[in-house]
Amino acid sequence: MPKDDKLTHIAEDGAANMVDVGGKEDTGRQAVAEGYIRMAPETLALIRDGDAKKGDVIGVARLAGIMAAKKTSDLIPLCHPLMLNKVAVEIDEAPDLPGLRIEAMVRLTGKTGVEMEALTAVSVACLTIYDMAKAADKAMEISGIRLLSKSGGKSGEWQRQPEDS
Amino acid sequence: MPKDDKLTHIAEDGAANMVDVGGKEDTGRQAVAEGYIRMAPETLALIRDGDAKKGDVIGVARLAGIMAAKKTSDLIPLCHPLMLNKVAVEIDEAPDLPGLRIEAMVRLTGKTGVEMEALTAVSVACLTIYDMAKAADKAMEISGIRLLSKSGGKSGEWQRQPEDS
Amino acid sequence: MPKDDKLTHIAEDGAANMVDVGGKEDTGRQAVAEGYIRMAPETLALIRDGDAKKGDVIGVARLAGIMAAKKTSDLIPLCHPLMLNKVAVEIDEAPDLPGLRIEAMVRLTGKTGVEMEALTAVSVACLTIYDMAKAADKAMEISGIRLLSKSGGKSGEWQRQPEDS
Amino acid sequence: MPKDDKLTHIAEDGAANMVDVGGKEDTGRQAVAEGYIRMAPETLALIRDGDAKKGDVIGVARLAGIMAAKKTSDLIPLCHPLMLNKVAVEIDEAPDLPGLRIEAMVRLTGKTGVEMEALTAVSVACLTIYDMAKAADKAMEISGIRLLSKSGGKSGEWQRQPEDS
Amino acid sequence: MPKDDKLTHIAEDGAANMVDVGGKEDTGRQAVAEGYIRMAPETLALIRDGDAKKGDVIGVARLAGIMAAKKTSDLIPLCHPLMLNKVAVEIDEAPDLPGLRIEAMVRLTGKTGVEMEALTAVSVACLTIYDMAKAADKAMEISGIRLLSKSGGKSGEWQRQPEDS
Amino acid sequence: MPKDDKLTHIAEDGAANMVDVGGKEDTGRQAVAEGYIRMAPETLALIRDGDAKKGDVIGVARLAGIMAAKKTSDLIPLCHPLMLNKVAVEIDEAPDLPGLRIEAMVRLTGKTGVEMEALTAVSVACLTIYDMAKAADKAMEISGIRLLSKSGGKSGEWQRQPEDS
Repeated sequence: MPKDDKLTHIAEDGAANMVDVGGKEDTGRQAVAEGYIRMAPETLALIRDGDAKKGDVIGVARLAGIMAAKKTSDLIPLCHPLMLNKVAVEIDEAPDLPGLRIEAMVRLTGKTGVEMEALTAVSVACLTIYDMAKAADKAMEISGIRLLSKSGGKSGEWQRQPEDS
Repeated sequence: MPKDDKLTHIAEDGAANMVDVGGKEDTGRQAVAEGYIRMAPETLALIRDGDAKKGDVIGVARLAGIMAAKKTSDLIPLCHPLMLNKVAVEIDEAPDLPGLRIEAMVRLTGKTGVEMEALTAVSVACLTIYDMAKAADKAMEISGIRLLSKSGGKSGEWQRQPEDS
Repeated sequence: MPKDDKLTHIAEDGAANMVDVGGKEDTGRQAVAEGYIRMAPETLALIRDGDAKKGDVIGVARLAGIMAAKKTSDLIPLCHPLMLNKVAVEIDEAPDLPGLRIEAMVRLTGKTGVEMEALTAVSVACLTIYDMAKAADKAMEISGIRLLSKSGGKSGEWQRQPEDS
Repeated sequence: MPKDDKLTHIAEDGAANMVDVGGKEDTGRQAVAEGYIRMAPETLALIRDGDAKKGDVIGVARLAGIMAAKKTSDLIPLCHPLMLNKVAVEIDEAPDLPGLRIEAMVRLTGKTGVEMEALTAVSVACLTIYDMAKAADKAMEISGIRLLSKSGGKSGEWQRQPEDS
Repeated sequence: MPKDDKLTHIAEDGAANMVDVGGKEDTGRQAVAEGYIRMAPETLALIRDGDAKKGDVIGVARLAGIMAAKKTSDLIPLCHPLMLNKVAVEIDEAPDLPGLRIEAMVRLTGKTGVEMEALTAVSVACLTIYDMAKAADKAMEISGIRLLSKSGGKSGEWQRQPEDS
Repeated sequence: MPKDDKLTHIAEDGAANMVDVGGKEDTGRQAVAEGYIRMAPETLALIRDGDAKKGDVIGVARLAGIMAAKKTSDLIPLCHPLMLNKVAVEIDEAPDLPGLRIEAMVRLTGKTGVEMEALTAVSVACLTIYDMAKAADKAMEISGIRLLSKSGGKSGEWQRQPEDS
């Protein structure tokens, strides 16, 4: 459920606008996000066997996710450039899909949150998996990209609740 | 369903590997992809009213998607750099979610397909919508990112089938 | 008028050199710059009517300016990378030219000024307007790109004076 | 004067849009643009004497212009990525301003014109000069950025006419 | 030994200059380069055991080399942007150093050679190995970065000769 | 000699991993690195005479090195983005090689060292020299890229020792 039913109008004319974070404090911040890629069971087997056409799929996707987190402010027009302390990406099998589950965690000491960096890492890791396995399976689907938790800053702790999904 | 149950082993040692497209012909190619972002009805109303904290959400997201397509080979480690002929991104309401539906179309005259460019455009447009509305709604979820069709090149036409979903 | 008639020789051999800002304090800094693009009255009418060949000209140019400010240290060889707090770009009609006036404001808490970021935002917004309207009018001219004010840092407040122009 | 008083509506809804160049032919294309930076006579003398705080101003600005031409599609949202054949930037004294005159020439074998690349090279060369001399003179002004000529492609030769200025 | 004892003066004033490749033909081109990183035997053992502080050293370095080849024209000021067909990086033990040997191969159908892309891939792979093992060994040394062969284009085949080293 | 014969296992599964620098203090840090490029004596003479095909070799290479230092976190997958205070690159003749010696110095107030930035500046300056002189001499070899000293941070001062080489 939205936190505010009325938004502070930063730009009263509705123009796109980079929010001023100058008044915010440098605090430790963290965000965790997840996402999924669903595929045919045979595709998952190919990846598991390190067999997909472009090589070690999971290792490459994890690295692509980490590197993408560092490019977030270049991709998302109104994001602030940030000096991230840490990015970690984990990729595990999600046998029920079947497919893979990607989780990214980002940490910063700074003036604004790192939700976008965590979500970008997850998205680009998913896209990289798609790229590396698409010769076998074009019908793969990326889904369930969402924030799990964030901490730090004025708005404090946020945890995804069961009713959010 | 995977097209091959056995993949040509480009790198027999399993190492990550950029596929050689030198032998492929320059042909007209096109790919179309879609994706969704689910949000609270109040968040959708805020976006519709041009009211979200960072400004004109849909216009900015569409542009971010177009620009991201041009960065695909910088984001996805084994993608080839390509001189795209055309990128278009459309964003419409998906009232049933509720949320927004993003569709991207990419065209190229070149040696390799543009599926990744279309999927990257959709993903970054979704992330940009999240960024611009997250002050109101952190629980938004990105889903259903998938290829709808591709044409051109040796493998020819591919259309998503009902049973793919 | 130049502030110094003799410059401290950082590099006595005249070699290009990134100034050391390590001894400077982190303070709040702001810079404001402006620029103009002159065009045929019919071109201005096309833009006003949201009619130019590439779409919503002013919205796209404003966003391009904001994004360019974040790339300043990548474009200007000796600029320092900076974590900007805020970038805003405004574009209004300048009926007397006729044409458009672009104003950019950039804020930072950091060790060096943000004049270059404001001037880069203005320049790239102007170039984007040119790009989007050039199918109608190749003779457009960009002019009057200049700093209006800066504040913060050791050198303190600077305001453009009437005799500067 | 605008070439068309009515524009083909590529996107009838007015949305920003990357024009499809797939139907255009690969031909040799060239564009030449110019620009100026006005400064105090003492600043020009400092630059001439290779004395400005950041080093060899003209050599660095020329190189920054060349490199910026290669980034044009990253800066201007709806520009196509292009494989430029050649970029040249010349910087000469413009004693009457007083200041410097920058001229850029760009060549391509491709499907779309290189006006934006030439104009971007000029703009970034001007910004680099400002950056390197700003410790002496914050009141410098960039002006007269405009296309001088273009050739190649369906629309053929275009030469700036005296009445364009 | 230098091929020419007198160089064609493209820019007679000695100014930095991007060579015009417009007159060259699109032909298949290939370049192969190598490089070495020398380290303490204990460091090599750590890498071999997949034990270095930042993880799987060789896999990450190989990928970094591939991605860097795609950024060559962004790093080397006068390089042309190119649409590479293929980049491959191999990393093997060089027990005699002791250390690692990196080899990169790049292919293009285009107007200019890909030596710089191959050398850049090798260099960045070496730097990445240094980065990932530097917590254990700051004294590592990168050496022997050189072209092994090139083919395609007007100047034709070039093979490194024993007397070149 | 390696400082640790046993590394703290940050990622116990051996996965590539960006080290968390959040617990480190912001201190003044500096790193100095060097490298060499060996060439035929005639090539060195061409460069000395400002005669190489692409223009002023040493000035361009110095600038390329400075700019590359700012891109380090974009090139080296697990490097942190940093706001460098200062980058300087010096290039001198090394008559005994014969060839050129490149030295880079980087300074930061921050949470992690700048060794990679100094080594990247040296590497890209070497590559740029190769690029600009390769029309005359393809057999040039880059060697001796290594850290000379670092200071700042918990691990304190490090100086290259004679026995390191």
